[in-house]
Amino acid sequence: MYLEHIGSPADVRALPAEAVPRLCAEIREAIVSSCAARGGHVASNLAVVELTVALHRVFETPRDKVVFDVSHQTYAHKMLTGRAAAFTDPARLGEVSGFSCPGESKHDLFATGHTSTSVSLACGLAHARDLAGETYDVVAVIGDGALSGGLAFEGLDNAAELGSGLIVVVNDNEWSIAPNHGGIYRDLAELRATRGASEHNVFRALGLDYRYVENGHDEAALEAALAELRGCDHPVVLHVHTEKGHGYAPAAADPERWHHAAPFDPASGAVEAPARPAGAPADPAATEETYASVTGALLMDWMRTDPRVVAVSAATPYIMGFTPELRARAGAHFVDVGIAEEHAVSYVTGLARAGARPVLGIYATFLQRAYDQLWHDLCLNGAAATILVFGASALGNTDATHLGFFDVPMLGALPGLTYLAPTCIEEYLDMVSWSIALEGGPVAIRVPVAGGVVSRPGFERPEDGYERGWEVARDGEGVAVLALGDAFPLGERVADELGRRLNVRATLVNPRRATSVDEGPLMDLAERHRLVVTIEDGVLEGGFGERVARVLARRGDVRVLAHGLPRAFVDRYDPAELLAGCGLTVDGIVTDVAAALRA
Amino acid sequence: MYLEHIGSPADVRALPAEAVPRLCAEIREAIVSSCAARGGHVASNLAVVELTVALHRVFETPRDKVVFDVSHQTYAHKMLTGRAAAFTDPARLGEVSGFSCPGESKHDLFATGHTSTSVSLACGLAHARDLAGETYDVVAVIGDGALSGGLAFEGLDNAAELGSGLIVVVNDNEWSIAPNHGGIYRDLAELRATRGASEHNVFRALGLDYRYVENGHDEAALEAALAELRGCDHPVVLHVHTEKGHGYAPAAADPERWHHAAPFDPASGAVEAPARPAGAPADPAATEETYASVTGALLMDWMRTDPRVVAVSAATPYIMGFTPELRARAGAHFVDVGIAEEHAVSYVTGLARAGARPVLGIYATFLQRAYDQLWHDLCLNGAAATILVFGASALGNTDATHLGFFDVPMLGALPGLTYLAPTCIEEYLDMVSWSIALEGGPVAIRVPVAGGVVSRPGFERPEDGYERGWEVARDGEGVAVLALGDAFPLGERVADELGRRLNVRATLVNPRRATSVDEGPLMDLAERHRLVVTIEDGVLEGGFGERVARVLARRGDVRVLAHGLPRAFVDRYDPAELLAGCGLTVDGIVTDVAAALRA
Repeated sequence: MYLEHIGSPADVRALPAEAVPRLCAEIREAIVSSCAARGGHVASNLAVVELTVALHRVFETPRDKVVFDVSHQTYAHKMLTGRAAAFTDPARLGEVSGFSCPGESKHDLFATGHTSTSVSLACGLAHARDLAGETYDVVAVIGDGALSGGLAFEGLDNAAELGSGLIVVVNDNEWSIAPNHGGIYRDLAELRATRGASEHNVFRALGLDYRYVENGHDEAALEAALAELRGCDHPVVLHVHTEKGHGYAPAAADPERWHHAAPFDPASGAVEAPARPAGAPADPAATEETYASVTGALLMDWMRTDPRVVAVSAATPYIMGFTPELRARAGAHFVDVGIAEEHAVSYVTGLARAGARPVLGIYATFLQRAYDQLWHDLCLNGAAATILVFGASALGNTDATHLGFFDVPMLGALPGLTYLAPTCIEEYLDMVSWSIALEGGPVAIRVPVAGGVVSRPGFERPEDGYERGWEVARDGEGVAVLALGDAFPLGERVADELGRRLNVRATLVNPRRATSVDEGPLMDLAERHRLVVTIEDGVLEGGFGERVARVLARRGDVRVLAHGLPRAFVDRYDPAELLAGCGLTVDGIVTDVAAALRA
Repeated sequence: MYLEHIGSPADVRALPAEAVPRLCAEIREAIVSSCAARGGHVASNLAVVELTVALHRVFETPRDKVVFDVSHQTYAHKMLTGRAAAFTDPARLGEVSGFSCPGESKHDLFATGHTSTSVSLACGLAHARDLAGETYDVVAVIGDGALSGGLAFEGLDNAAELGSGLIVVVNDNEWSIAPNHGGIYRDLAELRATRGASEHNVFRALGLDYRYVENGHDEAALEAALAELRGCDHPVVLHVHTEKGHGYAPAAADPERWHHAAPFDPASGAVEAPARPAGAPADPAATEETYASVTGALLMDWMRTDPRVVAVSAATPYIMGFTPELRARAGAHFVDVGIAEEHAVSYVTGLARAGARPVLGIYATFLQRAYDQLWHDLCLNGAAATILVFGASALGNTDATHLGFFDVPMLGALPGLTYLAPTCIEEYLDMVSWSIALEGGPVAIRVPVAGGVVSRPGFERPEDGYERGWEVARDGEGVAVLALGDAFPLGERVADELGRRLNVRATLVNPRRATSVDEGPLMDLAERHRLVVTIEDGVLEGGFGERVARVLARRGDVRVLAHGLPRAFVDRYDPAELLAGCGLTVDGIVTDVAAALRA
């Protein structure tokens, strides 16, 4: 086995050429076996095995700089830079991050997880190199749909002006997460069909030099092409045709499903059933219903009765339940704009302006890309659009690169945006329908994450909709608990425990809206409660609790205990530990209340 | 005079062709004379006179939809859609907004002021049209540097997939605000040089149809080209070569200076001297020093002693003092990335990673474009970079499209970002130098806007820098005034008046940092003050005051009166009225304090 003897890229370079195919096979096997055990980005990583080996045989990191876009395809890179055991030793799986991580290795330059950043980052490296009079090579590796992101274009556009050496490797595996969208991918297809010779060439049009390698799994060819570019004095694109899922039949046959896979049986490719708590009954219907599936079903219902409804995704259709089958059924009423979150928000603004009823489903962490489009297009123009915000929770993705719990501060100062936080599936579905039917302004909805699909059988639709008011779920006195959206079940348990431990019959409120408070009801509440507790599954600074505190602090006679998450890039954390660490548990909050009541 | 008889676009279409040149001349004259009187976007508007007339002679708005990108070039459009008097009647100048404004006219589809949105908005209009089975034409007019913005690329990339008609008019006047930057502008230059025939064509490469018109001031040629595209069934780019400042010699000779001009003498082009308050002494030195000029001078000083320092701009070099002369002197140490704010932030992250010391100067309103790059690139990677945030104030730009006072909520939850708010020029310059020298980072600085360059002769540099702590400018008791940055002079006057009117010797604090509070000093303050007043020239919701309120509301024995701006798209407001309306005046705040002390 070669892989176990690779301690650093120097060992990769020292290997005889004839050993390389075997090394690649070992890497591929380690990708499949480690992902089979713990899940991971199977198909993307399988596509870049030979490319990564070639990069490390030609360039000398960390002196030379290689920036991986998105960086979920760095498993081979990690194996070749001293971290192979984290993929091959069953006891050490998961020891490394699934993304580029400067804390792990000097060969990882940036923590990255969002797409389309690599060319801009590389431009910065290259210009700093030139200012310092250094001569190393700078390489950006971009692919997996990242070229449709506007930032990638801005990077390429500026690379053309750099006036010195920069190598952009376009890893063209023909896929984004889902199928690629946009004119640039037609151009790539035409370039593939002509072996790079088509006169239509977006890279050349931008003034960049261009080379093409047809077989991205021929390591020797890649090595030769990269070696030719070493030390080049101008920006050049190396277009490499790879196969997503290469070398593992199930992944190659269905790249979308295998972009990221849960643990699976490596022999058959069968994905294991989701783990059930010990003793829980096997209820297929219950385990199948997710916020994704109910969203897709609801929107399909809407489309049947209202032809104005359009579902929009930016390359992640599955989060809103739009499987390939549903996409086909929706026809022109479903649009995937590809990795282009800015466009997605401006686009739904245009749709709304011409009378359509767009519903955009998007991860909170990726919605960050469209902050200005939310402000300047959607909100300034009061577009009648719905934005479904997924993964906004400490219980969502736990990679520092993909944290989703910064949403309330992000959306908190946008004028005219109603940001709803449903507490259960009934309220969620009702809010979505209410927002689609609403004449007027944009509505965002924080799709619940915690605890799967939570049902509140007693839920009643408010007569006046969701623009003002809140729900007093339990009427009490002395202590009021305002538990936002996802955190509502925790609020219920806190209220229960306050009764048990402190003999306090707490009022429990479902605030419904995450970024605004009605001062009237809040002031009424303050008349009958000397302590207000806010609970939110989001960053404390800039969050819902601060808004409540600002209103009540004018009085000076009510204490406000705001509970939320830290403003920090926590990485691969244990959610239970994170929540406990900031007191977001029944015990943490009740203890805090007890101390305040004693004081 | 034709213009006074144009009540709507129907009148434009009814004009005989031979009358058109005279109409264009009248429009041009109205642009110059109205801008001479009140200031405005002179050069951009002069470039699109014939194009706008041709658009209105070929298309029938509002049935057909024309979306103007940035929309600062819509003066001719406004004149042709019933608003000519606002440009020709001296008594009615300024009656209309300088941007597209749906509230003014059914011919204005969107409020826009940021660049690069038009193609995405138009894609939305076009798809909604198709869903509704309508057949009108949709036209996006883009230019003035907007093509380098990634959003424009995302729009063009998606337009290629639309599958129906969309017309994108590229108004190529060869300029951004400053000279254009990026490969796409080289492509435009090559297309101009070849009369549209170059095989390097970024639009064709993306799969879009393409036409070229060399003389963008030949209205008949434009009319013919547009008429040919009426009702087209696929996306097409019409590349039109115009001259920025066309027909007015001073503007044509210096398009950068004339992109937007203050009031001027129309005969000579001489800009009037800035107005001085009655009785103020004529002090040329004092009026010349601005935050722009001191920034440029300081950075040039730094570059002389530290070759790592790089100043970066995204198409607005003048805000940080980088005149054409300073740019030339800085050489490779000044980089203008063009209209590409996302790239700018990722780029400085790359610069910092390779050891440079980048300083990015950017308007608050445009920094919104790079929210995700701030979070995911700059902050996640702890880049040692400085971001100078300009125009962050109610006293900055008063157009709803360009409001700058949403910065504190925007930057407020970014982990690891230190956001400094200097109170005077001495503190500002010291903070900039401190941040450049800092090992670690990133630091953003809220460049003061209010009252020109404010000096505080007693300013002393804090020994420990600006990462923690605050400045107690006056030690008092009972009432503490925390006045952030720009609002500090107001805080001083409030403290004075509290003494005079209420006999309160207030404590006055310069918090220094806008998005974080040290709980220790704040709690100490709470021991000696029963009332804390926060004053900030920014949105109240998500702002500095809420952070203070959250910390103090845990105690429940201190009242916090937070003063700030509304979360609203106020448009072309009178700053004094806005501030008075939300109590951000000496009288407003002192009255509020008096009421609280009585209660």
